[in-house]
Amino acid sequence: MKRDIYNEDHEAFRDSVRKFLERSVIPNAESYVEKKCFPRELWFAAGEQGLLGLGIPEAYGGSEAEDFRFAAVLGEETSKVSGALNSCWGIHSDTVVPYFVELGTEEQKKRWLPRIASGEILCAIGMTEPGGGSDLAALKTTAVRDGDEWVINGSKTFITNGYSADLILLAVRTSPEKKARGITLFAVEATKEGFSRGRKLDKVGQDESDTAELFFENVRVTDAEIIGELDQGFIHMMQYLPQERLGSAIANVAHAKQILLETVEYTKERKAFGQPIGTFQHNKFLLAELVTQIEAAEAYVDKLVAAHVRGELTAVDAAKGKWWSAQTQSEVLDHCVQLHGGYGFMNEYRVARAWRDARVTKIWAGSNEIMKELIGRSLGL
Amino acid sequence: MKRDIYNEDHEAFRDSVRKFLERSVIPNAESYVEKKCFPRELWFAAGEQGLLGLGIPEAYGGSEAEDFRFAAVLGEETSKVSGALNSCWGIHSDTVVPYFVELGTEEQKKRWLPRIASGEILCAIGMTEPGGGSDLAALKTTAVRDGDEWVINGSKTFITNGYSADLILLAVRTSPEKKARGITLFAVEATKEGFSRGRKLDKVGQDESDTAELFFENVRVTDAEIIGELDQGFIHMMQYLPQERLGSAIANVAHAKQILLETVEYTKERKAFGQPIGTFQHNKFLLAELVTQIEAAEAYVDKLVAAHVRGELTAVDAAKGKWWSAQTQSEVLDHCVQLHGGYGFMNEYRVARAWRDARVTKIWAGSNEIMKELIGRSLGL
Amino acid sequence: MKRDIYNEDHEAFRDSVRKFLERSVIPNAESYVEKKCFPRELWFAAGEQGLLGLGIPEAYGGSEAEDFRFAAVLGEETSKVSGALNSCWGIHSDTVVPYFVELGTEEQKKRWLPRIASGEILCAIGMTEPGGGSDLAALKTTAVRDGDEWVINGSKTFITNGYSADLILLAVRTSPEKKARGITLFAVEATKEGFSRGRKLDKVGQDESDTAELFFENVRVTDAEIIGELDQGFIHMMQYLPQERLGSAIANVAHAKQILLETVEYTKERKAFGQPIGTFQHNKFLLAELVTQIEAAEAYVDKLVAAHVRGELTAVDAAKGKWWSAQTQSEVLDHCVQLHGGYGFMNEYRVARAWRDARVTKIWAGSNEIMKELIGRSLGL
Amino acid sequence: MKRDIYNEDHEAFRDSVRKFLERSVIPNAESYVEKKCFPRELWFAAGEQGLLGLGIPEAYGGSEAEDFRFAAVLGEETSKVSGALNSCWGIHSDTVVPYFVELGTEEQKKRWLPRIASGEILCAIGMTEPGGGSDLAALKTTAVRDGDEWVINGSKTFITNGYSADLILLAVRTSPEKKARGITLFAVEATKEGFSRGRKLDKVGQDESDTAELFFENVRVTDAEIIGELDQGFIHMMQYLPQERLGSAIANVAHAKQILLETVEYTKERKAFGQPIGTFQHNKFLLAELVTQIEAAEAYVDKLVAAHVRGELTAVDAAKGKWWSAQTQSEVLDHCVQLHGGYGFMNEYRVARAWRDARVTKIWAGSNEIMKELIGRSLGL
Repeated sequence: MKRDIYNEDHEAFRDSVRKFLERSVIPNAESYVEKKCFPRELWFAAGEQGLLGLGIPEAYGGSEAEDFRFAAVLGEETSKVSGALNSCWGIHSDTVVPYFVELGTEEQKKRWLPRIASGEILCAIGMTEPGGGSDLAALKTTAVRDGDEWVINGSKTFITNGYSADLILLAVRTSPEKKARGITLFAVEATKEGFSRGRKLDKVGQDESDTAELFFENVRVTDAEIIGELDQGFIHMMQYLPQERLGSAIANVAHAKQILLETVEYTKERKAFGQPIGTFQHNKFLLAELVTQIEAAEAYVDKLVAAHVRGELTAVDAAKGKWWSAQTQSEVLDHCVQLHGGYGFMNEYRVARAWRDARVTKIWAGSNEIMKELIGRSLGL
Repeated sequence: MKRDIYNEDHEAFRDSVRKFLERSVIPNAESYVEKKCFPRELWFAAGEQGLLGLGIPEAYGGSEAEDFRFAAVLGEETSKVSGALNSCWGIHSDTVVPYFVELGTEEQKKRWLPRIASGEILCAIGMTEPGGGSDLAALKTTAVRDGDEWVINGSKTFITNGYSADLILLAVRTSPEKKARGITLFAVEATKEGFSRGRKLDKVGQDESDTAELFFENVRVTDAEIIGELDQGFIHMMQYLPQERLGSAIANVAHAKQILLETVEYTKERKAFGQPIGTFQHNKFLLAELVTQIEAAEAYVDKLVAAHVRGELTAVDAAKGKWWSAQTQSEVLDHCVQLHGGYGFMNEYRVARAWRDARVTKIWAGSNEIMKELIGRSLGL
Repeated sequence: MKRDIYNEDHEAFRDSVRKFLERSVIPNAESYVEKKCFPRELWFAAGEQGLLGLGIPEAYGGSEAEDFRFAAVLGEETSKVSGALNSCWGIHSDTVVPYFVELGTEEQKKRWLPRIASGEILCAIGMTEPGGGSDLAALKTTAVRDGDEWVINGSKTFITNGYSADLILLAVRTSPEKKARGITLFAVEATKEGFSRGRKLDKVGQDESDTAELFFENVRVTDAEIIGELDQGFIHMMQYLPQERLGSAIANVAHAKQILLETVEYTKERKAFGQPIGTFQHNKFLLAELVTQIEAAEAYVDKLVAAHVRGELTAVDAAKGKWWSAQTQSEVLDHCVQLHGGYGFMNEYRVARAWRDARVTKIWAGSNEIMKELIGRSLGL
Repeated sequence: MKRDIYNEDHEAFRDSVRKFLERSVIPNAESYVEKKCFPRELWFAAGEQGLLGLGIPEAYGGSEAEDFRFAAVLGEETSKVSGALNSCWGIHSDTVVPYFVELGTEEQKKRWLPRIASGEILCAIGMTEPGGGSDLAALKTTAVRDGDEWVINGSKTFITNGYSADLILLAVRTSPEKKARGITLFAVEATKEGFSRGRKLDKVGQDESDTAELFFENVRVTDAEIIGELDQGFIHMMQYLPQERLGSAIANVAHAKQILLETVEYTKERKAFGQPIGTFQHNKFLLAELVTQIEAAEAYVDKLVAAHVRGELTAVDAAKGKWWSAQTQSEVLDHCVQLHGGYGFMNEYRVARAWRDARVTKIWAGSNEIMKELIGRSLGL
């Protein structure tokens, strides 16, 4: 069924993204996996193409897309090629950028946005702490006032882009007694003294993304690095999390759909017992189910995108789309692996990597359990 | 999340339907169950209100709704009150009527449509045969040419409205050797000699609908009763099945959603171990899941409705919506029963009846297996 | 795979039970459904056959089976014929009797056991209260001391055998302030003044069993009617619940297995599209799954039975077997209905009734949620 | 619940295996992953301990265990430590050895068995071919008679132990026209001219096992290398596959159970929102479900083991145990990952590796689909 939320402009942009990926990403896909990161030249190329600054006003060097659907299109197309690329770019452009654009001072915008748009500055967001998981109220990294400065101590983990980030949007406790209401966001440059990184984390999937632990030991920052208001970090995060979760949902569906379509083709070509394996009724019905399931999820997420464009996306609806799409992705990909038989267990097959890559989506950006907690509360429970 | 396919006119119509149901149906709900049918006065009242003739041009006494969304609204609202009422009216108005309106001759339209719109003539569709299930190519009821007439022999089963129908749109084999391509549709009036009915079938659910077997013993009809073209019945049915299946999908979602919302309320009121049972985390998460699931299904079906309004609904998409919504409905309602504890097993509770009522939706109007076969074929499998 | 817990004696008993059922139950199955109860003559016949007193010593008129496996065999065979019959007999013989045999005084045993074994006295157990569900600590029916007597006030609901029971083992609050530790069991004869019954409850399934509400209005009993110790009712119940739950588990598996085997046969006979429907690969694989699933559940429950015979069955293991078997039964039967197509929705088909009958097993005798709570606690959570 | 199939001797053996693993395997676990194989010294150590020759008579240097339960115990204990170690040893000892012991000539037994028992000769089995999957009848590797010799050409893939095997039990087509009935088993030594290996395959999991492609280019063997009878290879394989599948089932359950128990502990220690995460009701109920599920699977597989010891294990029952345990393992481990949150996606956590390792068990040794086909056939479908 035709999707109905994208117009000609979006589709033209989709084409240009596809061409970029075919030219600049796909030929090097293997090398990203080996190096366990995307090289800076790829970021520069994306910056030049305007892909990193869709949410950044032209005045600050961005490509200033008309609406969020351009970001959605970018997310879909990169996810089809590499779930990890989408997450690295998504964190940079869709998750971090809005904080600077909407909460940043004029000075902050000028200081960082142009280089974020160009790929010169690579962004990460530092929320999760070792042992802390989704419980932001328990944040232990602190910033203590010392004269005109703040002194940050603590550590963050599971940070996407962590190993190569130049600028970290960091959630820090500034008022110890105020729990969730005592958190402030700082933009911390990686050149700061006292900042260091752990090794690249060895993950189950998303091999190409450089995930790392970050350490802050007496890192000194000033008020000029506060993003938004003092002690309002939790509220700021609540405001922008829906877009991040919607971004996850978009990626989850596009990623699983792409692999599913490739799997359908595979089952037409691959034969066993004298016939294409997809024509065995069990597989045929299974594929019929999976295609339905993914199209239903797509319809749902499209509706969320349309709501977001209208400025009506609620945190609860984003939570619904996020967990549901992650669940769907997981189920679909597990079946896709099975339909590939032994090849589904070999990393050289896209489906194998996709299955590993996808395992994190039920966990990150607010686990499915956290999403259900939010939704449950919205029901008055 | 706001639904986006209905405009003010549809919502105004929804209000009027609701008022009708509150006035004319809900107060008598118990009596319909006891009598195992909806009395003719209810049909007349619905006819008077214009609810039976949404798809019938004004010229033939119908209320001629502007688009299919009015039928969708009617389907949703009746399903919320009684799944059986929706199926009885749906068969009459959404399933049977299009054959008359779009394939009927001027004479046929004049002969039947006004009384169909008024509720004077109650319609059924006779496709399924004992032992035949979804395999239309195996149809055994025959019409044999005898002079100017056709002589029909055979039987049909699981016929909704069967016990009270005045006019049966009957699928009959006219060319024995041509399998699916040898089927013709006849409009058979129940007053015909040789027509008889079995008892009302004792069903697992949908107690209020009068489902019956129909018998045809040398029933004589003429060419004037052929609907559409000779031997083209299968093709005609293929053409109108998508709307029937979409109607099922709409009802499945609306029915399950309504019961789910009532269940959410129930779990807020009902206490155990000192707290509302819905606030136990297990139930809370479960309800969060079910609400998401039903909203995703709703988004999907809404998209199908929009496609149908644009004239773009394919048989395959209708099949997807039909099985998926039935599966969702089944899962949601089983959990709703569980959340009611022992009361969920008592017929006086709506949830208990809803659970029984819903069991048929994975079976009728093309079983979920048949749907998957269709979808699988569309994938080239 | 051969089951390994039953020896020749058990199998000989199984044969005799089967013959009894074929002779005395199966021919009248329809009439039980119509009357919504099992007539007293059936109870007498079962009593005469020794089926009601397996757990009752010969000294008190019982048939005193050597071990619990005879009760298990009886449970399996009755469940295959009628889930409701098993629940009515099971409550009487396996649930209520142990309280009298193991906790009763010599006088109490003489007073009631012989007539329980003969079917003259029909037993029920009164635990669940309206609005109370599984929360025994919240019990509201009270017995207040008045001279030498106790005065009982309150009501019970969902009582199997409730409409015809002669003797109710009643859980009553005797110490208001002591929560779960203030409950006492009384044996209340139905002839007592102040005792009355509501109508037979109209249930989703288990049509043949007479479930009812029971009302106690100033019903006067004495210490002679206390079963076990004052205020120790909760502890007594905890002691005997495992056997009741094991009985449920045995019945769940036997019931579902029987219907599944009948369904396999059905799918071999019934044809569609020119072949037996069971030979379509989708159905074939599905049936392979269901048979595996039921055999695995059977192996598990058999192991629990063996543990019970050795006196080693824990409450937690009984809980595991109870919920798991109920879940399995539910899933298996839903698929069995689907495999019957439209006939699966017709009450004249055993599969249709079985599906309705089975819905309660996830709810009664401690809902699946309560079982999981118990198991979770045993894990130290 | 106590398991009932193992006696004191088995448990004593279990202790000795555990000690061996704690001493010789666990301390080096990381290095096996890095090297993507188990070093020969580990094989020698296992050989010395008698672990490789449980199925080999003492006369041929084996430790000649009394019954299969010792192999089952070994499989359980190694699986708890490393799924890959179990598969490497299992292929060697439980899958390949029986062919030599039961079908081998006296000369063959003397030639190979002592060194198999000692770890000097490492075995693999070569059945699967590129593009061939589970369809043995389509085998393309051929052996053509040339004088007194046979000349083998073809290739095999997904061969566990393939990269280091010294002796390959190879399924080869000797009679092209006879499909499944034209296959012969040869024992091919890796020193043969014309034999070569591809690289170690890069797998989704089971990192420590060296899986490889094997190539045969004019490899010359003689009748002395035929195992069993000419053209009877398929029948021989059918005979020994049940034991291989039972071995898989045993490992699947033990592996998942171990990780589940570790996960339960993890959820007691790890806190979020101020309480151990396992005590959140959602997680508590989930863990209760998983523990039940794994215990039920264990009971089922134990019953299969007991049947095998009695010589009564059928191919169909082995198939049931194999697919069901693999499915259970998969479901359980996916939840275990989720309960670990972000750490579940990090390879340094056992649960992460276990999840990856386990993905293959639904695929290998006859995919779950093949199992269901076998079971379905046994039902007469």
